[in-house]
Amino acid sequence: MTTGFTLWFTGLSGAGKSTISEIVERELRALGRKVEVLDGDVVRTHLSKGLGFSKEDRDTNIRRIGWVCEVLSRNDVIAIAAAISPYRAVRDEVRERHGGRFIEIFIDVPLEVAIERDVKGLYKKALAGEIKGFTGVDDPYEPPLDPELIIHTDQETPQASAARILTALRQLGYL
Amino acid sequence: MTTGFTLWFTGLSGAGKSTISEIVERELRALGRKVEVLDGDVVRTHLSKGLGFSKEDRDTNIRRIGWVCEVLSRNDVIAIAAAISPYRAVRDEVRERHGGRFIEIFIDVPLEVAIERDVKGLYKKALAGEIKGFTGVDDPYEPPLDPELIIHTDQETPQASAARILTALRQLGYL
Repeated sequence: MTTGFTLWFTGLSGAGKSTISEIVERELRALGRKVEVLDGDVVRTHLSKGLGFSKEDRDTNIRRIGWVCEVLSRNDVIAIAAAISPYRAVRDEVRERHGGRFIEIFIDVPLEVAIERDVKGLYKKALAGEIKGFTGVDDPYEPPLDPELIIHTDQETPQASAARILTALRQLGYL
Repeated sequence: MTTGFTLWFTGLSGAGKSTISEIVERELRALGRKVEVLDGDVVRTHLSKGLGFSKEDRDTNIRRIGWVCEVLSRNDVIAIAAAISPYRAVRDEVRERHGGRFIEIFIDVPLEVAIERDVKGLYKKALAGEIKGFTGVDDPYEPPLDPELIIHTDQETPQASAARILTALRQLGYL
């Protein structure tokens, strides 16, 4: 049996997925585990060049990330996906394909808070109509109906969120 | 230090890359090693949907396979790439990025033999002009200048080729 698994973070841009995934990665490595983080930057550079923001392209992107997570996790690696992954159906498809050892974590934050943070200045551009099809502005975000964990990043520090994720992984028997 | 590495097979369509990689995969698994094969089918399904056969798209495809191999091999997995990968520069770029633990195996066969085998009927179509940009017919194949190993599949059985690869891996200190 593999010791790997996939931690699938989903949530709005600016919710805190990358920040929390970096802390979780560090903590898991400190436990001697092998970890790979597939966040937006990694994916855009290495997996999804040429894909746009149509629903079809977004789904292809998520399937592709999902497949890499699947391959890694069946080989004793902890794969952490930290992409918006706005559509429920394709997230569920990725979960299905994993056949277990898939933990979905909803990084939840009120849209207003994400807009206020606007770390990358993308909401400003989307609200001004300079970017089309931006999740939460003019493209839907479909929250998971039954995620293994929900994190409210407007109510605690990234460190506290990461600690709660580690605790959940212990309780679920992954660590 | 990782125990993983990348075995990069390169050669014409019909040279025998997939056949040999399957035998090598089986033998390595029998030794208790973790192995993933990225052959044309896997790649087309999971990584490269939407890419065509222009030089740019082919290079993107090879870089993408290379990146997945890199991620796997740094996590104790033996990654076997079995794609035509016709262009030398991008193969060398993938080797470079690996920073070691990269073994290039030239699966060499005379073009006439590949055409005669024509397992997938693709050469027939390419020679009839029904497929454009087919490697060896109207698109170049650039053989490696200094591969770790050359296999002549018109001169021995796939089993014998696989055995020679395993021997080479032992000699190079990978097994």
